[in-house]
Amino acid sequence: MKRSVTSHLDLGLSAPARLVFAVAAAQGSPFENESMALSVDGVPVTPRELVDFAGNRMHVLDAIGSTIVMDYAAVVTGQASPPPVDDFDLITYLRPSRYCESDTLAPTAGAEFTGVRGAALLDAVATWVSDTLTYVPGSSLPTDGAVRTFLGRQGVCRDYAHLCIALLRAMNVPARLAAVFAPGLSPMEYHAVCEAYLEPTDSTPGGWYVVDATRLAPRQSLLRVATGRDAADTAFLTNYGGNVTLDGLEVTAVVDDFGTDDGSQLIQLR
Amino acid sequence: MKRSVTSHLDLGLSAPARLVFAVAAAQGSPFENESMALSVDGVPVTPRELVDFAGNRMHVLDAIGSTIVMDYAAVVTGQASPPPVDDFDLITYLRPSRYCESDTLAPTAGAEFTGVRGAALLDAVATWVSDTLTYVPGSSLPTDGAVRTFLGRQGVCRDYAHLCIALLRAMNVPARLAAVFAPGLSPMEYHAVCEAYLEPTDSTPGGWYVVDATRLAPRQSLLRVATGRDAADTAFLTNYGGNVTLDGLEVTAVVDDFGTDDGSQLIQLR
Amino acid sequence: MKRSVTSHLDLGLSAPARLVFAVAAAQGSPFENESMALSVDGVPVTPRELVDFAGNRMHVLDAIGSTIVMDYAAVVTGQASPPPVDDFDLITYLRPSRYCESDTLAPTAGAEFTGVRGAALLDAVATWVSDTLTYVPGSSLPTDGAVRTFLGRQGVCRDYAHLCIALLRAMNVPARLAAVFAPGLSPMEYHAVCEAYLEPTDSTPGGWYVVDATRLAPRQSLLRVATGRDAADTAFLTNYGGNVTLDGLEVTAVVDDFGTDDGSQLIQLR
Amino acid sequence: MKRSVTSHLDLGLSAPARLVFAVAAAQGSPFENESMALSVDGVPVTPRELVDFAGNRMHVLDAIGSTIVMDYAAVVTGQASPPPVDDFDLITYLRPSRYCESDTLAPTAGAEFTGVRGAALLDAVATWVSDTLTYVPGSSLPTDGAVRTFLGRQGVCRDYAHLCIALLRAMNVPARLAAVFAPGLSPMEYHAVCEAYLEPTDSTPGGWYVVDATRLAPRQSLLRVATGRDAADTAFLTNYGGNVTLDGLEVTAVVDDFGTDDGSQLIQLR
Repeated sequence: MKRSVTSHLDLGLSAPARLVFAVAAAQGSPFENESMALSVDGVPVTPRELVDFAGNRMHVLDAIGSTIVMDYAAVVTGQASPPPVDDFDLITYLRPSRYCESDTLAPTAGAEFTGVRGAALLDAVATWVSDTLTYVPGSSLPTDGAVRTFLGRQGVCRDYAHLCIALLRAMNVPARLAAVFAPGLSPMEYHAVCEAYLEPTDSTPGGWYVVDATRLAPRQSLLRVATGRDAADTAFLTNYGGNVTLDGLEVTAVVDDFGTDDGSQLIQLR
Repeated sequence: MKRSVTSHLDLGLSAPARLVFAVAAAQGSPFENESMALSVDGVPVTPRELVDFAGNRMHVLDAIGSTIVMDYAAVVTGQASPPPVDDFDLITYLRPSRYCESDTLAPTAGAEFTGVRGAALLDAVATWVSDTLTYVPGSSLPTDGAVRTFLGRQGVCRDYAHLCIALLRAMNVPARLAAVFAPGLSPMEYHAVCEAYLEPTDSTPGGWYVVDATRLAPRQSLLRVATGRDAADTAFLTNYGGNVTLDGLEVTAVVDDFGTDDGSQLIQLR
Repeated sequence: MKRSVTSHLDLGLSAPARLVFAVAAAQGSPFENESMALSVDGVPVTPRELVDFAGNRMHVLDAIGSTIVMDYAAVVTGQASPPPVDDFDLITYLRPSRYCESDTLAPTAGAEFTGVRGAALLDAVATWVSDTLTYVPGSSLPTDGAVRTFLGRQGVCRDYAHLCIALLRAMNVPARLAAVFAPGLSPMEYHAVCEAYLEPTDSTPGGWYVVDATRLAPRQSLLRVATGRDAADTAFLTNYGGNVTLDGLEVTAVVDDFGTDDGSQLIQLR
Repeated sequence: MKRSVTSHLDLGLSAPARLVFAVAAAQGSPFENESMALSVDGVPVTPRELVDFAGNRMHVLDAIGSTIVMDYAAVVTGQASPPPVDDFDLITYLRPSRYCESDTLAPTAGAEFTGVRGAALLDAVATWVSDTLTYVPGSSLPTDGAVRTFLGRQGVCRDYAHLCIALLRAMNVPARLAAVFAPGLSPMEYHAVCEAYLEPTDSTPGGWYVVDATRLAPRQSLLRVATGRDAADTAFLTNYGGNVTLDGLEVTAVVDDFGTDDGSQLIQLR
């Protein structure tokens, strides 16, 4: 499998700011090649790259200027190793988080899913969220979490993922958000999905499996960008300080060999 | 400085559960000695210990039984190294979290603190939170975060810390929660404080400094237990599965040499 | 039908306050006899009685003292006229209110009840709320409304009624709260139910019908006390000014002829 | 004083709906002349007029069609009697309501205004709300109430009024929302202000006085349209049933003799 991805950002800046980009494919992706170009008012600059213990890469820029352009491109051939399973993660990703209020949603989860376990629970949650929500671009605010999504019954990919995560954590299943490139997505943009942990069984190895209640792109060709508790951890751009306007965002993602995904398989993000 | 701490937990359990204890002094504490004893229905058991990259120690027990007793004791002589500064932490701890909704509180923080920076900001936030809130045992629910604390104007130590953290993050200062042993605290229990990051200046080395708007214990003798985004990361007990009742909790913490703390110094948690 | 009701309140007062009691059977009840006795520190006092256009009676006392005792008793023989239908009410009781956030719950109502109308909708809402919630004394806070009740899936009678009201309003059915004496209720106290408006049909006259998802008392012997948008309008005691403690509350309500109520009939509050 | 007002509404309708207009000057206004014209798909129709005990006028139309046009005009010469004071109102308007959560905001009100009373309190609340909020068109959602306005520190006229009302009620001052025509407002539209009740004093008769923290129009020439607990009661258009789009809204309001209003006087809405 060969995946080719790009992203392009045009930003306006009204005061000096620290910009943190999470736009690059995760560490551990089998890169054939990769490039990132950043410029401030037309002058190339080099961001500082940070990599965390989980493979998240952040590109940090302390920017003074008025226009910023970022171009990223990568070609990835083959698949990464399965996502590593860390004992601490299995606890951390059970906790409620800013946009995945699993504590508040525990009564709802209990009412809907008590008695369902393992792969069947992942499937049940995905189906329930898919049935409950309507995909409506622009329907949510940045401060909205899973509770408001559940009440409003609509959202975009991050809202679908937040609700899946909150319900799964409430059922004691570790779950987290993955920002990804998603070949086949339409309209094309950065996508967000839930990853949930399954204990090993006779038929399935333990590990992190993709839950995507939007069903907008085949899961087997997703390419990981960032991983975290929720959108607070995986935004493609965060700024501290000055006001930043997003003047343009273009994402492309293609794969040479589309698999089919009827939603029923257990698929890992690789 | 010699600190001696103990904690004792009596739990009732109605169904098998995974229990995660965060009760021990953090890794890196200069232990003179330390012990933990756990029993289920009177039979000693050994929990699994997990240590994360930040020094958090968790003791995990998959328990089947009806009564659980945990006894922890440690003597720590001298101080730990200053808390390490990690580039990724400085970004992670700027993000909103479950109980520190810095995004929702940004307008309030901006109105109160715009133009105040560095050590003066830490002091201003601590003073403002101390003036705004009243310490009322039992006034908050487990699902309450900084927004509800701010609206209700009362809380306990975790609520004071959450509000400080949310306001500081909203002002672009990395801030996190530390659960601690607190010699001098009354009534004695596990305590929670905010730690905020200061950039190095001519007069002060960069690093993590304690902000405690409750002002209930001298900060220089605090002993770190757990560190995280908010109380979701630092609860002394979390259970997954069965219902757990907390039938008893006793904490002791003494120090041989009480320092004074008028709230104006910059103090690190060591 | 002969209904005999009493209520007794013991209050403590720490500062002068205006007390508003809504404890008496509504105007229009066919009283055989009725009495109210109020005393402040043992001295009898006479409250001011206000009656609004809808038959609500309030007894207002500007109290200075430390202990207040209120005793109310009434015997009602026969039934009141059916509740009057006022055009303005039919609009007012469609609006969202403090504890019946029909706007926020509209997506949920639409998902559950679209296409169901009239008496069938009242029945569907009562059944759904009864199935969704668990009756748990003490589970709700005074500031909780229907949204929190729905999320927490538990409550007491006022919470059941609030959720019914919010869902019905969201489906364009006028709905309101009635505080009532409820013969047969256990434990005995003031009860709260939803009243919903049905348009006249071939088989049923138009009017206000009782919806009680708690199913804790037969609806035909309920005796109306107060009517309003939600609990903000119908609390048996509201105080303005000093702190009031409720030191005792006893309610009795008996009827000479218990009807059966299997929940399927259309019953008016008379 | 002679006030001339008009309003014009263009609506699109996708399914049959009951429309409730609250667009006309209140009953009791000293009309020189008044007219309302309504048409559905170009055909004149006559709405049903409802008037409640408080002088609110509603025009109700059960509409089937696709376009609706409403034109209202009135000339009012002189002033209405001072707003009547009703004992029941003085209790009703102390209660928390959907968008004026005085219960949740009580701690904030107590912290800011304890010890301030009477006319000084109205002035203090208006000044505080004016200082706290920034007027930002489009900054609030229809489901936002005073709590979210306070947290977001921005809003439009209804948000300013809701926050004033909630704070005043929390201080035991009856307060309500008045929708008004506001000569001098820019941009011109229906305006919303708070009315608060003052007990009679040696220098001032008791009654309802205007509090307008937006300070966008002189209060003495405001012309009342609708009065209620909050925006749920006073919206210029409410629809039940079909989807309605607001394709156009034009309001005009002129007065022959502009008074000045420095915000310090006690002014009644007449």
